[in-house]
Amino acid sequence: MRKTSIDTVLEVRLKHRPGQLAALASAVASEGGLLSDITTVRMGEDDTVREVTVETDDDAHTDRVLAAVRAVEGIELLGTVDRVFALHKGGKLHSTSRVELRHLRDLRYIYTPGVARVSTAIHRDPALAWEYTGIARSVGIFTNGTRVLGLGDIGPLAALPVMEGKAVIYDAFVKISATPLLVDTTDVREFVDTVLRLSPTFGGIHLEDIRNPDCYRIEEQLIERLEKPVMHDDQHGTATVALAAVINACKITGVELARARVGQIGLGAAGSAIARLMMAYGVGDVLVHDRSEEAMTWLGSLGARPVDLATLMRESDIVIATTGRPNLIDPKQVRPGQVLFPLSNPYPEIDPGEAMAAGAAFATDGRTINNALAYPGIFRGALDVRSRAITRDMMIAAARAIAACAEPGDVVPSPLVPAVHTAVRDAVIAEAQRLGLAGTAKLGRR
Amino acid sequence: MRKTSIDTVLEVRLKHRPGQLAALASAVASEGGLLSDITTVRMGEDDTVREVTVETDDDAHTDRVLAAVRAVEGIELLGTVDRVFALHKGGKLHSTSRVELRHLRDLRYIYTPGVARVSTAIHRDPALAWEYTGIARSVGIFTNGTRVLGLGDIGPLAALPVMEGKAVIYDAFVKISATPLLVDTTDVREFVDTVLRLSPTFGGIHLEDIRNPDCYRIEEQLIERLEKPVMHDDQHGTATVALAAVINACKITGVELARARVGQIGLGAAGSAIARLMMAYGVGDVLVHDRSEEAMTWLGSLGARPVDLATLMRESDIVIATTGRPNLIDPKQVRPGQVLFPLSNPYPEIDPGEAMAAGAAFATDGRTINNALAYPGIFRGALDVRSRAITRDMMIAAARAIAACAEPGDVVPSPLVPAVHTAVRDAVIAEAQRLGLAGTAKLGRR
Repeated sequence: MRKTSIDTVLEVRLKHRPGQLAALASAVASEGGLLSDITTVRMGEDDTVREVTVETDDDAHTDRVLAAVRAVEGIELLGTVDRVFALHKGGKLHSTSRVELRHLRDLRYIYTPGVARVSTAIHRDPALAWEYTGIARSVGIFTNGTRVLGLGDIGPLAALPVMEGKAVIYDAFVKISATPLLVDTTDVREFVDTVLRLSPTFGGIHLEDIRNPDCYRIEEQLIERLEKPVMHDDQHGTATVALAAVINACKITGVELARARVGQIGLGAAGSAIARLMMAYGVGDVLVHDRSEEAMTWLGSLGARPVDLATLMRESDIVIATTGRPNLIDPKQVRPGQVLFPLSNPYPEIDPGEAMAAGAAFATDGRTINNALAYPGIFRGALDVRSRAITRDMMIAAARAIAACAEPGDVVPSPLVPAVHTAVRDAVIAEAQRLGLAGTAKLGRR
Repeated sequence: MRKTSIDTVLEVRLKHRPGQLAALASAVASEGGLLSDITTVRMGEDDTVREVTVETDDDAHTDRVLAAVRAVEGIELLGTVDRVFALHKGGKLHSTSRVELRHLRDLRYIYTPGVARVSTAIHRDPALAWEYTGIARSVGIFTNGTRVLGLGDIGPLAALPVMEGKAVIYDAFVKISATPLLVDTTDVREFVDTVLRLSPTFGGIHLEDIRNPDCYRIEEQLIERLEKPVMHDDQHGTATVALAAVINACKITGVELARARVGQIGLGAAGSAIARLMMAYGVGDVLVHDRSEEAMTWLGSLGARPVDLATLMRESDIVIATTGRPNLIDPKQVRPGQVLFPLSNPYPEIDPGEAMAAGAAFATDGRTINNALAYPGIFRGALDVRSRAITRDMMIAAARAIAACAEPGDVVPSPLVPAVHTAVRDAVIAEAQRLGLAGTAKLGRR
């Protein structure tokens, strides 16, 4: 299974004669590249220009494939485009007007003098901001870039493409207007102060890619001081989707969840949140392992069972790993009938294919157990019902909803299925209502 | 001339018989309402449902007109919609995806794992953020709501509709992606710190609706500490458009600008910026007046001539007023042939019609001298050329460009003419290049 494939589009001119595409395909294959789409751009008298997409492992690999293609007689390489970079060009987000601006009257309505009436009304009754501003569907995505994906501390600016990606998913899946916000500080207090001061701008606060343990303290303090939904996605989005996967994994393997043994390897932000959510959900036995004794002790104090890696692998029915350490799990450690979720991106702790070959009942990695399944519907539900918080019960409700949307035999659905996000939203709304949280959100601090 | 008209749409059912619309029109007129659009919604056997737009001065006036309409025999008032509030419903802005999200491959490209390659590239070379994020076309609009339009200190939340309006104009006129940011503090240092910490997120920093004198200190400190465009629009956007109007007013009246006497009444953020820009441009004699001795002394020290109101009115060829004090100027004070720009919104210092009747050569108010003419093109130009600052020379270049776009006999063009914003952008780009500022912007603080 390929992990971090690069898709490169080659623009090539081929002579009109049999065997040219075959020669191209052979050249790509000779260097281990994977041929994907082929589309014809234009046809001439003697030759054709085509776009050929080639999948490679890394930039050096791409270079070797390109050299092989260049060497084919009768094929001219006109240019190449890196699909990922092409898609990111100019950014992936734009703050777009929802109103028309064609006549001077439109300008008077949406700007001065008309807007003064709306501002005055909100000044008198702040709750009107829910109705006459975008706040009811808005989320600020705050990061300081201290722990981005598997890349570590790359700083706020380099984190922006990831935040834009998160915002794109919000727009595409649940029509939330999300704004990336890069907070240029590594100080917890400064981060919290910045978010608090900006908090009147947004209906919800999404925290992302903040290093451990700062992320816990930041989230705690914001939850304490704001009466609107706050959630650190790396913790709870991931945990919610992992729980959904575990619920279905139990079904697949016929294990009863209350008696199941779930082993969590890696107790960073995601891992510790997963272990805690499993316990809250009522998993019988939660085994945990981490290189940090402190993390083991902490989770132990919360009710998990700290063990060494070998014990965890031997005793667990379901194994989840969030360590950022590729190939940590030896296929020999896989117990027949075990379920494995090696979630680290881009390189999992064990290749799911190898895990299956070693006798696992089910194995899938972080590309499937994707938190894009959870956070859009969770925030949309919390905003729709104007809850002052996102609670663990709401995450569990979301996990159940995600699990219920999976096709038989799968552990989670595709995030591209719109029904998933509607189901998550509805489950979160119902749970917030049950908890008496509907209508409890407050705007601003004034 | 009507100032703050409210447009209300009345849904009415009228009997099919002659004179019904006439009766409706008479009822509206009897209470001093202005009839505007009439559209037919549906036609029945015996009656028709129509939407009738009525313009009134204020809410009480609307109520009187509605009562008069209800009293007409054969007309049933089904409902009313306030046009302005209807347009603001749900907010005027949405953070929209610029990429498609249809296949799992799209998700892999714009989110993990693909996005990791883009983040890594930016981490290695931060300048790539100009190309592969939205930063090159992004502006953060920061306010604390301490001085909103003519409304005063209404706080950040109530200022949001105004900020959304500014952002709508950015999108509609120059395709800049602008984000309203409400900063919940009245402390200068806290405000500056907040903007500095968030500054990596945006290509430019737009300051708006901040009380005087805080706005000066905030702008100064941010300009000093950031190497990207920073501009307080209430000062410089307004001053730029006022200068454009003065340039054309001189043409209309045949006064040479170097010999012209320009009087500025009101030395708040806008007024002092106007006076300073006039002096920088080379206006022969700039007279200033304000109730604050301190402001008079300050502008005096910069080269303006502090005078009392009567002297200013008597001696000035062109009078600009930004006092927020309706009817401050007595028509008797208007000198024949004088040009008047009473800019306070929504109520000007003198009704332009009355000024004309009193012998003015030209008079227009803040609805015409609209800073939506300046800030979009100024920021777009500064961003396009990646200038580390917006300088006074760039504002003057923008003012000249705006002036050149006006129809003969007008002082400024309509902001709805796209050519204006292109002209401002191009003038700002050319000036930045002349000043050696092109390519000097820096992203982030790290």
